[in-house]
Amino acid sequence: MDLHRIAKDTGKVLASYVTYQALRTILTQLSETDPPVAFWLQQFSANSNVQDGDVFIQELLNARQDLGFRLMTVREHIAAEIADYLPEMLQTGIQQSNLEHRCRHLERITQLSTPDGIDPDMPSPL
Amino acid sequence: MDLHRIAKDTGKVLASYVTYQALRTILTQLSETDPPVAFWLQQFSANSNVQDGDVFIQELLNARQDLGFRLMTVREHIAAEIADYLPEMLQTGIQQSNLEHRCRHLERITQLSTPDGIDPDMPSPL
Repeated sequence: MDLHRIAKDTGKVLASYVTYQALRTILTQLSETDPPVAFWLQQFSANSNVQDGDVFIQELLNARQDLGFRLMTVREHIAAEIADYLPEMLQTGIQQSNLEHRCRHLERITQLSTPDGIDPDMPSPL
Repeated sequence: MDLHRIAKDTGKVLASYVTYQALRTILTQLSETDPPVAFWLQQFSANSNVQDGDVFIQELLNARQDLGFRLMTVREHIAAEIADYLPEMLQTGIQQSNLEHRCRHLERITQLSTPDGIDPDMPSPL
Protein backbone atom coordinates (compact mmCIF):
# COMPACT_ATOMS: atom_id res chain seq x y z
CA MET A 1 0.00 0.00 0.00
CA ASP A 2 1.58 3.23 -1.17
CA LEU A 3 0.40 5.55 1.62
CA HIS A 4 2.66 8.38 0.50
CA ARG A 5 1.02 8.51 -2.94
CA ILE A 6 -2.46 8.12 -1.45
CA ALA A 7 -1.87 11.03 0.96
CA LYS A 8 -0.56 13.21 -1.88
CA ASP A 9 -3.49 12.39 -4.18
CA THR A 10 -5.95 13.00 -1.34
CA GLY A 11 -4.37 16.40 -0.68
CA LYS A 12 -4.90 17.37 -4.33
CA VAL A 13 -8.54 16.21 -4.38
CA LEU A 14 -9.11 18.11 -1.14
CA ALA A 15 -7.62 21.34 -2.56
CA SER A 16 -9.83 21.08 -5.66
CA TYR A 17 -12.91 20.48 -3.55
CA VAL A 18 -12.13 23.48 -1.33
CA THR A 19 -11.70 25.58 -4.50
CA TYR A 20 -15.16 24.44 -5.61
CA GLN A 21 -16.62 25.40 -2.22
CA ALA A 22 -14.91 28.80 -2.49
CA LEU A 23 -16.55 29.27 -5.89
CA ARG A 24 -19.97 28.43 -4.43
CA THR A 25 -19.36 30.90 -1.60
CA ILE A 26 -18.43 33.70 -4.02
CA LEU A 27 -21.46 32.94 -6.21
CA THR A 28 -23.72 33.28 -3.15
CA GLN A 29 -22.04 36.54 -2.12
CA LEU A 30 -22.22 38.01 -5.65
CA SER A 31 -25.85 37.03 -6.14
CA GLU A 32 -26.62 39.44 -3.28
CA THR A 33 -24.13 42.21 -4.02
CA ASP A 34 -23.67 42.12 -7.80
CA PRO A 35 -26.13 39.86 -9.67
CA PRO A 36 -24.78 40.54 -13.20
CA VAL A 37 -21.29 39.41 -12.17
CA ALA A 38 -22.80 36.42 -10.36
CA PHE A 39 -24.55 35.50 -13.61
CA TRP A 40 -21.31 35.89 -15.57
CA LEU A 41 -19.39 33.68 -13.10
CA GLN A 42 -22.17 31.09 -13.13
CA GLN A 43 -21.99 30.88 -16.93
CA PHE A 44 -18.20 30.82 -16.88
CA SER A 45 -18.03 27.95 -14.36
CA ALA A 46 -20.67 26.00 -16.30
CA ASN A 47 -18.36 26.07 -19.34
CA SER A 48 -15.11 25.38 -17.46
CA ASN A 49 -13.46 22.48 -15.70
CA VAL A 50 -14.40 23.03 -12.04
CA GLN A 51 -13.21 19.49 -11.16
CA ASP A 52 -9.56 20.60 -11.33
CA GLY A 53 -9.21 23.61 -9.05
CA ASP A 54 -5.89 24.78 -10.49
CA VAL A 55 -7.02 24.65 -14.12
CA PHE A 56 -10.16 26.57 -13.15
CA ILE A 57 -8.24 29.32 -11.35
CA GLN A 58 -5.87 29.65 -14.30
CA GLU A 59 -8.79 30.06 -16.71
CA LEU A 60 -10.58 32.50 -14.41
CA LEU A 61 -7.44 34.63 -13.95
CA ASN A 62 -7.14 34.87 -17.73
CA ALA A 63 -10.80 35.83 -18.12
CA ARG A 64 -11.36 38.11 -15.09
CA GLN A 65 -8.36 38.54 -12.82
CA ASP A 66 -10.33 40.23 -10.01
CA LEU A 67 -12.50 37.12 -9.60
CA GLY A 68 -9.46 34.84 -9.91
CA PHE A 69 -7.72 36.64 -7.06
CA ARG A 70 -10.90 36.62 -5.01
CA LEU A 71 -11.26 32.85 -5.50
CA MET A 72 -7.69 32.29 -4.32
CA THR A 73 -8.23 34.44 -1.23
CA VAL A 74 -11.48 32.70 -0.30
CA ARG A 75 -10.13 29.17 -0.80
CA GLU A 76 -7.10 29.97 1.36
CA HIS A 77 -9.44 31.27 4.06
CA ILE A 78 -11.69 28.19 3.92
CA ALA A 79 -8.66 25.87 4.05
CA ALA A 80 -7.33 27.68 7.14
CA GLU A 81 -10.71 27.49 8.88
CA ILE A 82 -11.56 23.83 8.27
CA ALA A 83 -8.12 22.14 8.08
CA ASP A 84 -7.82 21.32 11.78
CA TYR A 85 -11.20 19.55 11.87
CA LEU A 86 -10.46 17.23 8.94
CA PRO A 87 -8.49 14.43 10.68
CA GLU A 88 -11.16 13.93 13.32
CA MET A 89 -14.01 14.22 10.78
CA LEU A 90 -12.43 11.73 8.40
CA GLN A 91 -11.60 9.12 11.03
CA THR A 92 -14.79 9.25 13.08
CA GLY A 93 -16.84 9.61 9.87
CA ILE A 94 -15.43 6.38 8.45
CA GLN A 95 -15.58 4.50 11.76
CA GLN A 96 -19.19 5.54 12.27
CA SER A 97 -20.14 4.65 8.71
CA ASN A 98 -18.39 1.25 8.94
CA LEU A 99 -20.28 0.48 12.15
CA GLU A 100 -23.60 1.32 10.51
CA HIS A 101 -22.79 -0.85 7.48
CA ARG A 102 -21.83 -3.77 9.75
CA CYS A 103 -25.05 -3.45 11.77
CA ARG A 104 -27.28 -3.16 8.69
CA HIS A 105 -25.55 -6.13 7.08
CA LEU A 106 -25.93 -8.21 10.25
CA GLU A 107 -29.63 -7.36 10.39
CA ARG A 108 -30.03 -8.28 6.75
CA ILE A 109 -28.32 -11.69 6.92
CA THR A 110 -30.08 -12.49 10.20
CA GLN A 111 -33.43 -11.85 8.57
CA LEU A 112 -32.48 -13.91 5.51
CA SER A 113 -31.57 -16.92 7.63
CA THR A 114 -34.85 -16.90 9.62
CA PRO A 115 -37.06 -19.37 7.74
CA ASP A 116 -40.36 -18.11 9.19
CA GLY A 117 -39.58 -14.48 8.56
CA ILE A 118 -39.41 -11.80 11.20
CA ASP A 119 -40.44 -12.64 14.78
CA PRO A 120 -43.52 -10.42 15.40
CA ASP A 121 -42.43 -9.91 19.05
CA MET A 122 -39.14 -8.36 17.95
CA PRO A 123 -38.96 -4.68 17.04
CA SER A 124 -38.49 -4.16 13.32
CA PRO A 125 -34.85 -3.50 12.44
CA LEU A 126 -35.89 -1.19 9.60
CA MET B 1 -19.95 31.77 4.54
CA ASP B 2 -21.32 28.59 6.09
CA LEU B 3 -18.08 27.02 7.29
CA HIS B 4 -19.89 24.35 9.29
CA ARG B 5 -21.64 23.01 6.18
CA ILE B 6 -18.46 23.29 4.09
CA ALA B 7 -16.48 21.31 6.68
CA LYS B 8 -19.19 18.63 6.81
CA ASP B 9 -19.42 18.31 3.01
CA THR B 10 -15.63 18.19 2.74
CA GLY B 11 -15.54 15.38 5.31
CA LYS B 12 -18.00 13.34 3.22
CA VAL B 13 -16.08 13.90 -0.03
CA LEU B 14 -12.89 12.93 1.78
CA ALA B 15 -14.42 9.69 3.12
CA SER B 16 -15.63 8.74 -0.36
CA TYR B 17 -12.23 9.44 -1.87
CA VAL B 18 -10.47 7.34 0.78
CA THR B 19 -12.95 4.52 0.02
CA TYR B 20 -11.99 4.77 -3.65
CA GLN B 21 -8.29 4.60 -2.73
CA ALA B 22 -9.01 1.55 -0.55
CA LEU B 23 -10.70 -0.09 -3.54
CA ARG B 24 -7.66 0.61 -5.73
CA THR B 25 -5.38 -0.84 -3.03
CA ILE B 26 -7.44 -4.03 -2.78
CA LEU B 27 -7.53 -4.39 -6.59
CA THR B 28 -3.72 -4.19 -6.67
CA GLN B 29 -3.40 -6.73 -3.84
CA LEU B 30 -5.89 -9.15 -5.45
CA SER B 31 -4.30 -8.89 -8.89
CA GLU B 32 -1.22 -10.49 -7.31
CA THR B 33 -2.85 -12.95 -4.93
CA ASP B 34 -6.16 -13.88 -6.59
CA PRO B 35 -6.53 -12.62 -10.19
CA PRO B 36 -10.04 -14.08 -10.79
CA VAL B 37 -11.44 -12.18 -7.77
CA ALA B 38 -9.54 -9.06 -8.88
CA PHE B 39 -11.25 -9.36 -12.26
CA TRP B 40 -14.64 -9.81 -10.62
CA LEU B 41 -14.13 -6.74 -8.38
CA GLN B 42 -12.91 -4.70 -11.36
CA GLN B 43 -16.07 -5.57 -13.30
CA PHE B 44 -18.26 -4.92 -10.25
CA SER B 45 -16.78 -1.47 -9.59
CA ALA B 46 -17.07 -0.56 -13.29
CA ASN B 47 -20.83 -1.15 -13.04
CA SER B 48 -21.33 0.51 -9.64
CA ASN B 49 -21.33 4.00 -8.22
CA VAL B 50 -17.78 4.39 -6.85
CA GLN B 51 -18.28 8.16 -6.45
CA ASP B 52 -20.38 7.61 -3.32
CA GLY B 53 -18.32 5.44 -0.96
CA ASP B 54 -21.25 4.43 1.24
CA VAL B 55 -23.50 3.35 -1.63
CA PHE B 56 -20.61 1.35 -3.07
CA ILE B 57 -19.90 -0.47 0.21
CA GLN B 58 -23.59 -1.26 0.61
CA GLU B 59 -23.76 -2.77 -2.87
CA LEU B 60 -20.51 -4.69 -2.39
CA LEU B 61 -21.66 -6.12 0.96
CA ASN B 62 -24.82 -7.36 -0.73
CA ALA B 63 -22.86 -8.94 -3.59
CA ARG B 64 -19.77 -10.30 -1.78
CA GLN B 65 -19.66 -9.63 1.95
CA ASP B 66 -15.99 -10.73 2.34
CA LEU B 67 -14.86 -7.98 -0.04
CA GLY B 68 -17.23 -5.47 1.56
CA PHE B 69 -15.69 -6.11 4.98
CA ARG B 70 -12.20 -5.98 3.52
CA LEU B 71 -12.94 -2.59 1.92
CA MET B 72 -14.18 -1.21 5.23
CA THR B 73 -11.07 -2.44 7.06
CA VAL B 74 -8.68 -1.02 4.46
CA ARG B 75 -10.39 2.39 4.28
CA GLU B 76 -10.32 2.70 8.06
CA HIS B 77 -6.60 1.87 8.01
CA ILE B 78 -5.85 4.43 5.26
CA ALA B 79 -7.86 7.10 7.09
CA ALA B 80 -5.91 6.47 10.31
CA GLU B 81 -2.56 6.65 8.49
CA ILE B 82 -3.10 9.81 6.44
CA ALA B 83 -5.50 11.86 8.62
CA ASP B 84 -2.85 13.72 10.59
CA TYR B 85 -1.06 14.93 7.45
CA LEU B 86 -4.17 16.42 5.81
CA PRO B 87 -4.37 19.86 7.52
CA GLU B 88 -0.75 20.68 6.66
CA MET B 89 -1.07 19.28 3.12
CA LEU B 90 -4.26 21.20 2.41
CA GLN B 91 -3.02 24.54 3.73
CA THR B 92 0.49 24.52 2.32
CA GLY B 93 -0.82 22.96 -0.93
CA ILE B 94 -3.26 25.83 -1.47
CA GLN B 95 -0.81 28.53 -0.36
CA GLN B 96 1.87 27.16 -2.68
CA SER B 97 -0.56 26.85 -5.58
CA ASN B 98 -1.90 30.40 -5.01
CA LEU B 99 1.64 31.76 -5.02
CA GLU B 100 2.41 29.99 -8.31
CA HIS B 101 -0.81 31.31 -9.88
CA ARG B 102 0.01 34.86 -8.75
CA CYS B 103 3.55 34.67 -10.15
CA ARG B 104 2.44 33.19 -13.46
CA HIS B 105 -0.29 35.80 -13.81
CA LEU B 106 2.14 38.63 -13.01
CA GLU B 107 4.53 37.31 -15.63
CA ARG B 108 1.74 37.09 -18.17
CA ILE B 109 0.36 40.60 -17.67
CA THR B 110 3.88 42.03 -17.58
CA GLN B 111 4.59 40.45 -20.94
CA LEU B 112 1.27 41.63 -22.34
CA SER B 113 2.02 45.22 -21.34
CA THR B 114 5.47 45.20 -22.96
CA PRO B 115 4.81 46.60 -26.44
CA ASP B 116 8.02 45.23 -28.00
CA GLY B 117 7.45 41.71 -26.69
CA ILE B 118 9.89 39.81 -24.50
CA ASP B 119 13.22 41.38 -23.69
CA PRO B 120 15.80 38.97 -25.18
CA ASP B 121 18.17 39.64 -22.27
CA MET B 122 15.61 38.41 -19.72
CA PRO B 123 15.29 34.66 -18.97
CA SER B 124 12.04 33.20 -20.35
CA PRO B 125 9.33 32.97 -17.68
CA LEU B 126 7.94 29.77 -19.25
